[in-house]
Amino acid sequence: MAHRFPVRVYYEDTDMGGIVYHANFLKYIERARSAWVRDLGHDQNAMRAGGTIFVVRRVEADFLAPAHYDDVLDVVSEIISAGAAKLVMEQTVMRDETVLFRALATVVCLGPDGAPVRLPANIRQLAR
Amino acid sequence: MAHRFPVRVYYEDTDMGGIVYHANFLKYIERARSAWVRDLGHDQNAMRAGGTIFVVRRVEADFLAPAHYDDVLDVVSEIISAGAAKLVMEQTVMRDETVLFRALATVVCLGPDGAPVRLPANIRQLAR
Amino acid sequence: MAHRFPVRVYYEDTDMGGIVYHANFLKYIERARSAWVRDLGHDQNAMRAGGTIFVVRRVEADFLAPAHYDDVLDVVSEIISAGAAKLVMEQTVMRDETVLFRALATVVCLGPDGAPVRLPANIRQLAR
Amino acid sequence: MAHRFPVRVYYEDTDMGGIVYHANFLKYIERARSAWVRDLGHDQNAMRAGGTIFVVRRVEADFLAPAHYDDVLDVVSEIISAGAAKLVMEQTVMRDETVLFRALATVVCLGPDGAPVRLPANIRQLAR
Repeated sequence: MAHRFPVRVYYEDTDMGGIVYHANFLKYIERARSAWVRDLGHDQNAMRAGGTIFVVRRVEADFLAPAHYDDVLDVVSEIISAGAAKLVMEQTVMRDETVLFRALATVVCLGPDGAPVRLPANIRQLAR
Repeated sequence: MAHRFPVRVYYEDTDMGGIVYHANFLKYIERARSAWVRDLGHDQNAMRAGGTIFVVRRVEADFLAPAHYDDVLDVVSEIISAGAAKLVMEQTVMRDETVLFRALATVVCLGPDGAPVRLPANIRQLAR
Repeated sequence: MAHRFPVRVYYEDTDMGGIVYHANFLKYIERARSAWVRDLGHDQNAMRAGGTIFVVRRVEADFLAPAHYDDVLDVVSEIISAGAAKLVMEQTVMRDETVLFRALATVVCLGPDGAPVRLPANIRQLAR
Repeated sequence: MAHRFPVRVYYEDTDMGGIVYHANFLKYIERARSAWVRDLGHDQNAMRAGGTIFVVRRVEADFLAPAHYDDVLDVVSEIISAGAAKLVMEQTVMRDETVLFRALATVVCLGPDGAPVRLPANIRQLAR
């Protein structure tokens, strides 16, 4: 079950090439992950206060087509696999039917001592 | 007549102080100005293609209280004065009733040769 | 006695206008303040661990001329006035002899409880 | 023959986790690529004026250990393979002997019409 998250391209996101600076796509997909976690009822501020955080371990990213100022994009996120403490997500950034960017992102959940901790159950259960 | 624009604080906006990095407030108020111009029917991509751009000339900014991850803020913008090619705007960033940031921003409209050009009439008329 | 700090403009600093995004000048002058504090023998990581931080309270910024990709700029910083816990600095960003940006920045030193604390003596003594 | 490029971690690079925000490692490795191209005698402003640009097509990135405020890092870059218009580079970000980040970055050279163009010879010849 995919999660959709809208992103408006701001002026600050562009570079002198007249398009969105490539690294900003990683910000877009993180906003989407954060929104998803929030939609599932998890408050990352509270998690953090309790010593639990999500950390990005690996990203495989393909930059397929440029995004432009004022575009309204959609980040479509899906969990590909979920281990006890690790998620692999596929995240695509679309403008209408065009895929601009696609990434596989591996995220782990770490506890107060930096060791992996179990992911919340309602997140793991979303693995397709 | 004030314009209101919502901003969600993203993880990318924070710094190691645990709060929004100070310069990012300038991004927030620019997003609000861009949205306002769009709401008034001006497409900045089309303006730019025609050689007309808005440029920030001066900002007086007071950083009054910190913003935090996941906060939903409001940027309240009002035109203080408008000349032929120049606007002075007051922009405040609020969290509920608390003012976190306040700025006076001076923006000019420049034409293809870099010289000032008349602001669109429906923008100038908003001066209070 | 002014402090000089070199800044190379990176691709990431530019925007679709083909110039440095305006808010990034605030980053440049903060890098210069940080370098200055480091040059004076203060380790901001250690200060922070001890609960003391610098916070930007106010910036008056004039954007005078654009900076471009690959420019090598100089940030020239001078302390205008120093109180017990508060500094006012004038910071200009130059390309050769051209002033691109000028700011008055007010910075305060805060302690563990968020209340102002005395600035290190060798910083206060630099006020001109 | 590897290229080395130093990076100082600025306050602006950190996030509320107290470490460098993950996407900023992509900025660090791009600064290194730009410096390398400059060291090889290519002026990207002139290339761009002539209609030729480098574009990032793919990044495989592993985030291995955190970087912190004020760290001095080294970006070590090596060309793994070079086609007519395409480079694959391995780029690692080190703090002393510790690898914090490693990426395989695929970059292509595009001409005025957006079609691939031959890479400069002295870049292709660096492929190991």
